[in-house]
Amino acid sequence: MKREYLLTPGPTPVPEEAYLAMSRPIIHHRTSQYRKIFEEVTTSLKDVFKTKNDILTFTSSGTGAMEACVANLLSPGEKAIVVKGGKFGERWEEICQAYNIGTTCIDVKWGEPVNPNLIGEELAEAGGGIGAVFTTLCETSTGVVNDIESIGRIVKRYEAVFVVDAISGLGADNLETDNWAVDVVVAASQKGLMTPPGLAFVSVSPKAWERVERSKFPRYYFDFRKAREGLEKFDSPFTPAVTLMIGLGETLKLINGEGIDNVLARTRRIARGVREAVKALGLELFAPAAPANAVTAVKVPEGIDGQALVKLMKDKYGVTIAGGQAQLKGKIIRVAHMGHITDSDLLAGISALEKALDEFGYKVRTGAGVEAAKEIFTSGN
Amino acid sequence: MKREYLLTPGPTPVPEEAYLAMSRPIIHHRTSQYRKIFEEVTTSLKDVFKTKNDILTFTSSGTGAMEACVANLLSPGEKAIVVKGGKFGERWEEICQAYNIGTTCIDVKWGEPVNPNLIGEELAEAGGGIGAVFTTLCETSTGVVNDIESIGRIVKRYEAVFVVDAISGLGADNLETDNWAVDVVVAASQKGLMTPPGLAFVSVSPKAWERVERSKFPRYYFDFRKAREGLEKFDSPFTPAVTLMIGLGETLKLINGEGIDNVLARTRRIARGVREAVKALGLELFAPAAPANAVTAVKVPEGIDGQALVKLMKDKYGVTIAGGQAQLKGKIIRVAHMGHITDSDLLAGISALEKALDEFGYKVRTGAGVEAAKEIFTSGN
Repeated sequence: MKREYLLTPGPTPVPEEAYLAMSRPIIHHRTSQYRKIFEEVTTSLKDVFKTKNDILTFTSSGTGAMEACVANLLSPGEKAIVVKGGKFGERWEEICQAYNIGTTCIDVKWGEPVNPNLIGEELAEAGGGIGAVFTTLCETSTGVVNDIESIGRIVKRYEAVFVVDAISGLGADNLETDNWAVDVVVAASQKGLMTPPGLAFVSVSPKAWERVERSKFPRYYFDFRKAREGLEKFDSPFTPAVTLMIGLGETLKLINGEGIDNVLARTRRIARGVREAVKALGLELFAPAAPANAVTAVKVPEGIDGQALVKLMKDKYGVTIAGGQAQLKGKIIRVAHMGHITDSDLLAGISALEKALDEFGYKVRTGAGVEAAKEIFTSGN
Repeated sequence: MKREYLLTPGPTPVPEEAYLAMSRPIIHHRTSQYRKIFEEVTTSLKDVFKTKNDILTFTSSGTGAMEACVANLLSPGEKAIVVKGGKFGERWEEICQAYNIGTTCIDVKWGEPVNPNLIGEELAEAGGGIGAVFTTLCETSTGVVNDIESIGRIVKRYEAVFVVDAISGLGADNLETDNWAVDVVVAASQKGLMTPPGLAFVSVSPKAWERVERSKFPRYYFDFRKAREGLEKFDSPFTPAVTLMIGLGETLKLINGEGIDNVLARTRRIARGVREAVKALGLELFAPAAPANAVTAVKVPEGIDGQALVKLMKDKYGVTIAGGQAQLKGKIIRVAHMGHITDSDLLAGISALEKALDEFGYKVRTGAGVEAAKEIFTSGN
């Protein structure tokens, strides 16, 4: 008998409230019953996004909504700036390339946040020819959180729209959409929102809507205008992922019941606990300068294969963490702490990590990590 | 206390086996556990599609996969033929228009199937300039099933690929993808496949793959080539709708356990029962010439508002049926009989219809519909 702990940055564990609601006999989406759920979800998401902008819902992975941003905000021949400091920054570049958008990439060393001034310099140099700036709140592949507030202060002086992939950060790392002048935020259901994957969300500012109206790329399913029409009577343009929306309705009640700022504070505390645990074990953080609260990336000690470490933790201790992606394969491990992941889950995870490291011959003082984490967890801030 | 009966053409009721499996703690998709499910689902779908072609899975509504067909199979400036005999035929036209594809529509009177020879005539007349023929297996808005076999025999002589929207028909109306030379079949999870909405599928023939390689439309999330790469190791290119895939794994076990041909025969029988019931009540079928087995469309008697009828059945008797869409709003009702909808559910539905009609002043002999249906249901063929 083994208890499983899912400590990955998406999907994250789903609360019982959502499972139970999703297990009730399915309902049809062209009913007042479903429209009420759609309306409630849309309203509740605004509190989490900290925005008064429209929030559009799509049945897709987060990547679908990222592509939707490129297809709706730009037109053939236009240019964009992409902040590229990990796999998900690269994804913006790949999507722009697929749409033949002239892309200026700001290459950031993996594990570091972008310097906002570099974006300002590129915008100034381009002299008004940039349609959008694509960035990432939490770069899940490296555990970095970017300074969205400072970037927003810069981009708002230009005609470019400011687009933030907050897929893994939302609900874990603070994002003040309106205060920080973020025109478009992309999110998904399976991270801080604690719902199974399959839903993606996009908030759209008035400045962004102007670009949507002008866009010349072919689009239908992901057409922001159709999604906005759907909001008029909360009548989805296409068959929505009914059960996932029902589940999300429940998790949003949990989030807004606790209050988004309390959720963020709790997440900040447990993230700090995990970082302290890691340091107490003599391990190095991969992103010490700007560690995200959604996920902690840790360098795997010399001589240990990170993939084997992940496998041992899963197979022997039932703890699922993530390894490194692309150039970081085998070199880092990533532990998530957002949504429904609790202090206790993380203590179990850290304990398993101690044991697994020991089995690979890495000397740790047993309990040192757990102790360090527990101290922060119980400190109340 | 009211028992709810969902008799709509999608979402359809979900079997207990799927609900239970979807309620187990969520798993991560980059694991052998998930890859095994992805592989099993893909293999099982081939039995249902009756194909050896690749089957691609997308996290989206069926419409997303329809758009994916246009974006992957055609290029700017190319032409297509669209069979338009209802709302979903119109959707092909709308998507083609969004992509600026020159479209020849074959306008079919709503409630009638397309004459396959008309497609042959258009193909011959165009002299080879047509890239794709877009059709519908079961036109859900009218309850018509088209003669896909005959159309396939015609289209295969041309360079055009033959694309069938089988979103509501698959698993209810027979579709022999390979035998009938269907190049691309689009399906979705929430109809005959008995899983909540959020997954769409596309089967792609070698002839269609040639066009995919050549296509020049911008695409990323719905890129067939990325989805095919994902099949190599059953490693989804983007975060998939994990719980829905798990649910689908269970419903496919039910379908293939019974055998797809047995499922189709059972569905054919209950569809016939519903048609006989409707006739016994003195009502007229909307699509008598080619009624689908997935859904039956029935003309609402003169003087009765179809929308009010649907509402009464839902509010008073807990029976959810669908009304008419677009030009048929208020004029027809639609009763689904596919997937997990059983004889008993339909008897409850027919009985509620009898009572509701009576309340609207339409004279029926109480029990006449139920009796007629029951006779067919118990006849064994």
